[in-house]
Amino acid sequence: MSGVGTTDGVSMANGERRYLAFDIGGTKIASGVVSLPSVDSLAQPVVADVEMIPTLADRGGDDVRERLVEFAVRRIERCAHDGVDIVGVGIGSAGVVDSSSGVILSATDLMPGWAGQHITAAVGEATGLPVHMVGDVGAHGIGEALYGAGRGYPIMLSVGVGTGIGGAVVDHGRLITGAHGVAGHVGHMPHGLGTGMRCSCGTTSGHIEPVASGTGIADLFESRRPDDVAPAANAAAIARRAAAGERYAVEILTMSARALGECLAGMGNLIDPAAIVLSGSVVNAGEVWWRALREGFADGALPLLRSTPLLRGRLGGDAPLIGAAAAFAAYSDICHA
Amino acid sequence: MSGVGTTDGVSMANGERRYLAFDIGGTKIASGVVSLPSVDSLAQPVVADVEMIPTLADRGGDDVRERLVEFAVRRIERCAHDGVDIVGVGIGSAGVVDSSSGVILSATDLMPGWAGQHITAAVGEATGLPVHMVGDVGAHGIGEALYGAGRGYPIMLSVGVGTGIGGAVVDHGRLITGAHGVAGHVGHMPHGLGTGMRCSCGTTSGHIEPVASGTGIADLFESRRPDDVAPAANAAAIARRAAAGERYAVEILTMSARALGECLAGMGNLIDPAAIVLSGSVVNAGEVWWRALREGFADGALPLLRSTPLLRGRLGGDAPLIGAAAAFAAYSDICHA
Repeated sequence: MSGVGTTDGVSMANGERRYLAFDIGGTKIASGVVSLPSVDSLAQPVVADVEMIPTLADRGGDDVRERLVEFAVRRIERCAHDGVDIVGVGIGSAGVVDSSSGVILSATDLMPGWAGQHITAAVGEATGLPVHMVGDVGAHGIGEALYGAGRGYPIMLSVGVGTGIGGAVVDHGRLITGAHGVAGHVGHMPHGLGTGMRCSCGTTSGHIEPVASGTGIADLFESRRPDDVAPAANAAAIARRAAAGERYAVEILTMSARALGECLAGMGNLIDPAAIVLSGSVVNAGEVWWRALREGFADGALPLLRSTPLLRGRLGGDAPLIGAAAAFAAYSDICHA
Repeated sequence: MSGVGTTDGVSMANGERRYLAFDIGGTKIASGVVSLPSVDSLAQPVVADVEMIPTLADRGGDDVRERLVEFAVRRIERCAHDGVDIVGVGIGSAGVVDSSSGVILSATDLMPGWAGQHITAAVGEATGLPVHMVGDVGAHGIGEALYGAGRGYPIMLSVGVGTGIGGAVVDHGRLITGAHGVAGHVGHMPHGLGTGMRCSCGTTSGHIEPVASGTGIADLFESRRPDDVAPAANAAAIARRAAAGERYAVEILTMSARALGECLAGMGNLIDPAAIVLSGSVVNAGEVWWRALREGFADGALPLLRSTPLLRGRLGGDAPLIGAAAAFAAYSDICHA
């Protein structure tokens, strides 16, 4: 981004500012107008005018970028037409993002040609607004840190447990992106339970993701399933069977959540967060999962850390857009002005 | 600390500034006058006038604090007498340190009554100088980051592998201390190889320290030692036997270093450091250890991180004092002025 420019006249009566946010995923690109109050206030962010377009990722990165730019221009024009002042554009994108250059560093096979795209420059030139881009998981994390369950905690670890496991570290309002934009890959922490199970990154040395993500819980269940136990379709089914008291389901869910809790403890011992916020589909796995997660955490955490709260994320489906806007605001510092 | 005050006249011709540094350990308190060049220069820091007093920790925390204050006053008087201008006092201390309040939060049984001591205030009042205190492992890390092997890398993970395993994360010149001053406890990362081995923190759930510190290597060696293999006195002896080609010694050293490398990868995946700097006695364990460490790292690290350099620390015995001074300088920002 090229500086925030004048912000005269864009403050709303309650100190809120409005941002145009984008969440770029493998299947859809969502956009919303996000109103962010001061992080020190008790006011809640508001997401309005949400609109989506399909990503059509198989058409290639250039095509996606071009349609994203058209979408952004149309959105900005509509804001202008409606008299909505936009301070800047926040983008959360799938893939590994270099926030300083605004370039996608790498992306999965699901988004061919997405790596290498100069997104920040393209959107900035077309809209005439300052733009800041972060990874989608980082956006989620900074949203929860500043406006969700992590609000008020100076340093926070955000962990999303869904199909995979991702996360973010937010330190005093700043997303830690690391040297290559890779920081926050919490699913790729070592754990003995994962040894021999293939991780999405390719290793079989033992990562937590292949035994503690939603897919991982199902794989762990199947890998050790005795003949007299019925197969399970997915983690949600395993969670239901565990809640109903089925012994093997309880055993697997406990083993998986305990291992994840031990990994959270290890990460806690390294960065000492004031809170750990968990979101994603697996946090709905019920009391068996949460109890084992807390036990594993307490067992692995250093004494001063044992009381670190493990919290459930609060922003739900709005997290990616709020986070993209918050990442812009935190980066440009105008939110704290 | 209460602001840096005027620094007129304390700059040396080459832009260096001088700090009085203290390294407080369980057996001795060392002090030196540290001259720090600008971090952007190629000049090296210089440690002069090093002096030590015994900690006499068993006399209790109050006694240690009082003698530390006397020591500091005497040192400052000598600097004044010698015409050495001191900008401020940097302290690295054993125990868990709250840098913002300048208080020791916790300490091991080796330093009874050290927890709870208001060190920064006591030294600041007695000397009339601004004081900043960090943990000793953090001081080492920030020293290596700014003036040692990590110089020039924007974000660095420092890992000390000796009797125990400690470390520090330094992000853009700033030591990450976390919510309770506990950040950097890299020895307490989960690893399956440690399962069942008691860690210094008490857990047997599986931490890396009890199988990868110097003591841990010796314990791992003994725990699996076949009857026809001679016992080993310590990790250094195991390293010598491995270097001489003894099969069991090679096997244990490889297993331990590989596990540590996998943990470094996990931490790398979380914070994405531009470099990882290793120091402490175990980094002298030879080629068998380094090769296995690098293999474990490459196996666990995400593709974009695999080329992250694993470097040997450069500051040696001067690291704690240089680090304490650098922590003060980084905190007060005058080093970058």
